[in-house]
Amino acid sequence: MTSLPPALLDALTKALGPGGLLTDASDMTPYLTDWRSLFHGKAVAVARPASTAACAEAVRLCAKHNVPVVPQGGNTSMVGGATPDETGHALVIVTSRMNRVREIDPIDNTMVVEAGVTLKAAQDAATAAGLMLPLSISSEGSAEIGGVLATNAGGNNTVRYGNARELVLGLEAVLPDGQVLDVMRRLRKDNTGYALRQLFIGSEGTLGLITTAILQLQPKPKSVEAALCAVADAKGALALFSAFRNTEPSAIQAFEFMSGLSMNLVNTLIPDASLPLSEAAPGYVLVELASPREGGALRDLMEEVLGRAFEDGLVSDAVLAESETQRLAFWKLREEHAEAQKRAGASVKNDVSVPLSAIPTFIDRATAACEALIPGIRVAPFGHIGDGNIHFNLVQPEGADGKAFLARDHEMMDTVAGIVKELGGSFSAEHGVGQLKTYMMPGWRGGAELDMMRRIKSAVDPEGIMNPGKIFPAA
Amino acid sequence: MTSLPPALLDALTKALGPGGLLTDASDMTPYLTDWRSLFHGKAVAVARPASTAACAEAVRLCAKHNVPVVPQGGNTSMVGGATPDETGHALVIVTSRMNRVREIDPIDNTMVVEAGVTLKAAQDAATAAGLMLPLSISSEGSAEIGGVLATNAGGNNTVRYGNARELVLGLEAVLPDGQVLDVMRRLRKDNTGYALRQLFIGSEGTLGLITTAILQLQPKPKSVEAALCAVADAKGALALFSAFRNTEPSAIQAFEFMSGLSMNLVNTLIPDASLPLSEAAPGYVLVELASPREGGALRDLMEEVLGRAFEDGLVSDAVLAESETQRLAFWKLREEHAEAQKRAGASVKNDVSVPLSAIPTFIDRATAACEALIPGIRVAPFGHIGDGNIHFNLVQPEGADGKAFLARDHEMMDTVAGIVKELGGSFSAEHGVGQLKTYMMPGWRGGAELDMMRRIKSAVDPEGIMNPGKIFPAA
Repeated sequence: MTSLPPALLDALTKALGPGGLLTDASDMTPYLTDWRSLFHGKAVAVARPASTAACAEAVRLCAKHNVPVVPQGGNTSMVGGATPDETGHALVIVTSRMNRVREIDPIDNTMVVEAGVTLKAAQDAATAAGLMLPLSISSEGSAEIGGVLATNAGGNNTVRYGNARELVLGLEAVLPDGQVLDVMRRLRKDNTGYALRQLFIGSEGTLGLITTAILQLQPKPKSVEAALCAVADAKGALALFSAFRNTEPSAIQAFEFMSGLSMNLVNTLIPDASLPLSEAAPGYVLVELASPREGGALRDLMEEVLGRAFEDGLVSDAVLAESETQRLAFWKLREEHAEAQKRAGASVKNDVSVPLSAIPTFIDRATAACEALIPGIRVAPFGHIGDGNIHFNLVQPEGADGKAFLARDHEMMDTVAGIVKELGGSFSAEHGVGQLKTYMMPGWRGGAELDMMRRIKSAVDPEGIMNPGKIFPAA
Repeated sequence: MTSLPPALLDALTKALGPGGLLTDASDMTPYLTDWRSLFHGKAVAVARPASTAACAEAVRLCAKHNVPVVPQGGNTSMVGGATPDETGHALVIVTSRMNRVREIDPIDNTMVVEAGVTLKAAQDAATAAGLMLPLSISSEGSAEIGGVLATNAGGNNTVRYGNARELVLGLEAVLPDGQVLDVMRRLRKDNTGYALRQLFIGSEGTLGLITTAILQLQPKPKSVEAALCAVADAKGALALFSAFRNTEPSAIQAFEFMSGLSMNLVNTLIPDASLPLSEAAPGYVLVELASPREGGALRDLMEEVLGRAFEDGLVSDAVLAESETQRLAFWKLREEHAEAQKRAGASVKNDVSVPLSAIPTFIDRATAACEALIPGIRVAPFGHIGDGNIHFNLVQPEGADGKAFLARDHEMMDTVAGIVKELGGSFSAEHGVGQLKTYMMPGWRGGAELDMMRRIKSAVDPEGIMNPGKIFPAA
């Protein structure tokens, strides 16, 4: 680990104010490892600016002294996207102290939030104002808005409201030279040059550090209906999705698929989980409808579509949530899949997406290929089938040696990835590239695409100081 | 006008095939002037490639010979965005022969279209497949998909479905060096590097030439309701919009405001237009609701919200369309505003947007300022109030000299623009920058923003051959 030049230490201390700069090793520890504990980095210091001005000054000083900057929000990256490398040259800049919800406008239906506001706090502030921020991910209690936007977070509600990208009207960011880019416009129509905010969203901190955003809110739902349905397979789940979408797409708040095997793990390994259907099925769908209107129209819609699906043989059984408690119990069945798989032994995760129409083929082919590779493997896919994002997880054979199974993780991941690629899919639907998946970029996004990304990176950050080692493989 | 070097002429002729290269002056004429006749350019030739490969080869040859390229679709730019300059050095590349709808997928709800398909043809193909392409602009009969995406077109349905930007899943484009950028992925979730397709959308052909796109479609509406409402002013119109949005935002297909003065011009100057309300009002709203479901729910929704609006005093009169004929008659009242203003004399147009919450203030302040500037001026605003885009048009005083009025156009435009800017708005909501408004960029988007745009332009197009003179003012 290197240490800060005295001139830079003094200037940063002054710019960041009391408590704004951590240089003590034990104070810095929580910021140097990702939460999956995949990466362990070092840093010259950790900066915690309380304002855009302080943040910009810190970046300007880093640029002047050629010190790399690693932006970090709630430190919930799945791919090591906010962890510095092991050289110890970088300054980690943590956004957590920039944590004000500045304004909620009930006519524009917008929210002005600083980067360090957690997604949960932003949701709560919107709800308290009678509105809804329609973005929900499992790490929302810790994940901060800056990181959520830098990684274009997705989650359960993408099927209805899009990814983070679709919710952003305005943005403020500190550029690699310390300039502040201010595109904080709350306009639905504005065709005046390049869409810089769109370029920033999903750039994983490699072009600058997002400090503030204007988010588009929605009216708060006043009625919600959820149903758990038994289906024959992913093809049946997809046909059910089409039935709902073709009837009333704007009512579908979430549409989740769970394979029979994966649900069985939940049902047997999670103590207080219990399947509310009379018998096990090859596949399940959790569909949730929501509306800003009160009354029974949503229930009627649910019953109408499910009624037709029964007649068409798409659904063999279904139960509708009769209370909020029951609705949450349905969601618990969905949310415990990762935990149940963990309890079933070693597992390998694949956060992939394919076109909707390719989902059944993908699941069939990838299942057969994995079963051929490792006899007895438990293929346990589940996820956001409504937006093509399947968590294609693989659990070790019962009673097998977990370590030996994990030793073959790259064989399994490559097998799945090969099929995803043939079907025009993505190797990272939600989690981004970070430092974990940079090696995949040339094979998947190479040629003109990666070349253009590199050109943009070099143009905006010629010295390469912003979040080095992320997205781009070493040249 | 320069002429093509023989080697380039031969190579282009070979690459583009029979009918692919126009060099005769009279053949070229239609491609050298914008449809508003504001700009008259020259070119070495006009290329009409029939495929991406031919287009890429033409661009590669241009790059090799340092010949600028001006991409052109249906030539419907309002700002001279597709017209070459007067030097005659450029090759105009027209996309019209790349005009196949390649595929419509009823499970993905996607459409693969080539750049030269007109927006209307794309809409019709979607409709024929039982789906809807929810993008509608007045030039849709001529405007082609490539240009529609290059300029991020908006229109009447942005309030519900977003701008063109929100409808694009995948894109193919020819880069300034002739490489083909292929990001033709039909994925709702794909976090693997920079959002290049978003950067291309709205870049007005300055980064490359869009050749193909994958568009997201919607279920086709099966019921539609329209109402024409009398309101006191823009504030009342906005409150009525909030009432609809807070009840069922996904039902609002269009929400248009028309000032009393502007509607009066339509009513008196357009022969077969007639106001279906019993008396004239200070302002009007045309609201259209749509749903993919059949039945009377939409009518109930319309009556419910309008009923409350009457009680709250927001609406003083309203009439619901009882037939498709009547619905189209309502739309005629909206669509004839430009024509009525033309018949009323000389007029000055402002395609501006402000945050929704600022619309009443904007209209009040801009009206007062223009009336102070030119006594007797007829301020006739109308437009897409649901997305903040007001066409703030100014009609000459009755009986005044039109030419003298127009001689003061910049005074009027600057007066309006100054207020738009103070309210955080945009000088070009829908039409883009083109060559007409490049001079406004430094004042409105200057500093770090324009600097970053320039860096990106230089990185992607270091020789500056793609659509020179557009978006960026001369350095």
